[in-house]
Amino acid sequence: MVLFGKRYLMAPGPTAVPEDVLLEAARPIMHHRTPDFSGILWAVSNDLKKIFKTEQPVYILASSGTGAMEFALVNTCSVGDKVLIVVGGKFGERWFEMARAYGLDTVVYEIEWGSAPLPEEIDRYLKEHPDIKAVFTTLFETSTGTVYDIEAIARCVQESNAILVVDAVSGMAACDLQMDNWGVDVVVASSQKAFMLPPGLSFVAFSEKASKLVGKSDLPSYYFSALDYKKAYFSNTTPYTPAVSLIVQLRKALSVMLEEGIDNVIRRHALLAEATRMGVKAIGLELFSSNPGNVCTAVKIPTGIDGVKLLSRIRDVYKVTISGGQGKLKGKILRIAHLGYAYAFDVVIAISALEMALKDEGYPVELGRGVGAAELILREGK
Amino acid sequence: MVLFGKRYLMAPGPTAVPEDVLLEAARPIMHHRTPDFSGILWAVSNDLKKIFKTEQPVYILASSGTGAMEFALVNTCSVGDKVLIVVGGKFGERWFEMARAYGLDTVVYEIEWGSAPLPEEIDRYLKEHPDIKAVFTTLFETSTGTVYDIEAIARCVQESNAILVVDAVSGMAACDLQMDNWGVDVVVASSQKAFMLPPGLSFVAFSEKASKLVGKSDLPSYYFSALDYKKAYFSNTTPYTPAVSLIVQLRKALSVMLEEGIDNVIRRHALLAEATRMGVKAIGLELFSSNPGNVCTAVKIPTGIDGVKLLSRIRDVYKVTISGGQGKLKGKILRIAHLGYAYAFDVVIAISALEMALKDEGYPVELGRGVGAAELILREGK
Repeated sequence: MVLFGKRYLMAPGPTAVPEDVLLEAARPIMHHRTPDFSGILWAVSNDLKKIFKTEQPVYILASSGTGAMEFALVNTCSVGDKVLIVVGGKFGERWFEMARAYGLDTVVYEIEWGSAPLPEEIDRYLKEHPDIKAVFTTLFETSTGTVYDIEAIARCVQESNAILVVDAVSGMAACDLQMDNWGVDVVVASSQKAFMLPPGLSFVAFSEKASKLVGKSDLPSYYFSALDYKKAYFSNTTPYTPAVSLIVQLRKALSVMLEEGIDNVIRRHALLAEATRMGVKAIGLELFSSNPGNVCTAVKIPTGIDGVKLLSRIRDVYKVTISGGQGKLKGKILRIAHLGYAYAFDVVIAISALEMALKDEGYPVELGRGVGAAELILREGK
Repeated sequence: MVLFGKRYLMAPGPTAVPEDVLLEAARPIMHHRTPDFSGILWAVSNDLKKIFKTEQPVYILASSGTGAMEFALVNTCSVGDKVLIVVGGKFGERWFEMARAYGLDTVVYEIEWGSAPLPEEIDRYLKEHPDIKAVFTTLFETSTGTVYDIEAIARCVQESNAILVVDAVSGMAACDLQMDNWGVDVVVASSQKAFMLPPGLSFVAFSEKASKLVGKSDLPSYYFSALDYKKAYFSNTTPYTPAVSLIVQLRKALSVMLEEGIDNVIRRHALLAEATRMGVKAIGLELFSSNPGNVCTAVKIPTGIDGVKLLSRIRDVYKVTISGGQGKLKGKILRIAHLGYAYAFDVVIAISALEMALKDEGYPVELGRGVGAAELILREGK
């Protein structure tokens, strides 16, 4: 037992935070209505634009990603608005539940969990319902390990009058998302993912088209009212007390990300994901998703193995925190994240723990085979 | 200039965080769906009850205090509900704006800024409008430095059918608030005040009477839906990703507070406030509030002195961050906080900086006189 004394966090959020970003939180607290803090806000706002690939303001909220999703919805929709929602996992469901809570008229494009939406189907829905005001979808459906083709979806939505609202909470900076180039109208992200930060901050940006809707919405909101954030943004401040220690950490994390370069960060995630898939397949396991992506890899629990027990073993014996399935996938899949502060040996550790735990559970696995397959890919990242 | 090289944060939030609480944020990030983190949640939830002086659950939100105010409102009211709102400063105004944003029928008890509401007036409003469903008020109106008599107000409200909702965002643990004993129905607090934590967490508790309203409200909400927090609470978890690093810091801060004892924490604040008032008066300045309290002391800018310039001088030359007036009080008052991680010499520093800055601005002040008067009180706290 003493050999497995170090803990490794490989869940799709919160993710590990680099030591020098952790230490930023230990700095003395700054007051938020000061030129010093305004300077930090200005810097992080500019850096966030580079991550979002947009020229538009990126608002910073003190909330989890769900709060930012609500911010996106309440500021662009009105009661009774017809909206199209792609539901292919827990986070598509969240858009749906939220839209229902606010009395929107929901059209649901339901897809099998683990699959990605077809752009041509979205096109069909938009033509069948020309009064759809907004399309709500997800960059990376974390619950199934599936990436959606936002570029193609945006192309369809742009031909309609609707806006495209994308939950990029887990996907931002792990998967490519070119907000301005692709014409995405609202993008939502959160700190505890590829940003390598603790949870507690979330980010939202609106296109010019979506900005025109802000203030016209009749959905009630106060803490999440975008007009107040917009006004504050242009004075380098925030409408309510911001989470200052997390924003000071954000400055450091963004500087680390931009030193690497946003496209290099995405390429790193792509390579880690590819290596993980190779490792998992070499062990003899199957991927759950038909369109896997860079955030986390969802793996089917093989027949005869108790998924809940396997997960506990990996976490408790090997001290590697990966995730199980959520909702109806509980006990049926494992999800290995390669997200944020993740490098080659993190994949090696995850695959190694999986091999050993499977062997413990009586599954026939040749120890080292998965790791070897991953290494083949990882070496490309030298 | 080099003599004033240390910075002191004496604003009514965010407040300074003790070094050992700062360092807690530098610990490796924990995953939130783990027995270890559930154990921390369990511990802080129990400790929060002691601070709130309640047997009811205290929910922890990832938001600023304004978010928690919205949580209190959307879970207890319905569209068109008649509510009484005490407006005697910026935070009373916030309740009003929020109630209007959600379509409530607002009855406003407006008082002069700097004064406290009269319980008998609240009684009169409740008798005149027996259909009032809720009374919204504030424990400590930070914008004017005024404490409200919540105990007496609660006595009036209990004779009606209404619930009493108290914004104790700045007041909690600095001023006494006995939620259960006094019969307060909803209490809202926030991390960056007497809790000695960075901003980003807020706390809400509901009495049994208020809990019965939760779920019956027809106001839309999702991130702030109390039913989800209640369900999660009893499983030692949270509905959405919690701000884990701030909660780990909360554990430490609560242990520091409870080691001192909640009533000792309040007594400390009372003594610091009293010393500040004595110091300010000895300089020859007047208090702004007719009912000053323990969070911050609001001081009138004397005639002939430019309040904005004085504040800048205290901040920029003497490096002591106190606050000015908000809204219509900008330039008219200074607010010196004695909140959270504040002890005797913090008052000495604040009064000393005020004396020197006033002298710089040409105000006739006998240097040391204010500090001496403060010391008289501070010595009682030996």
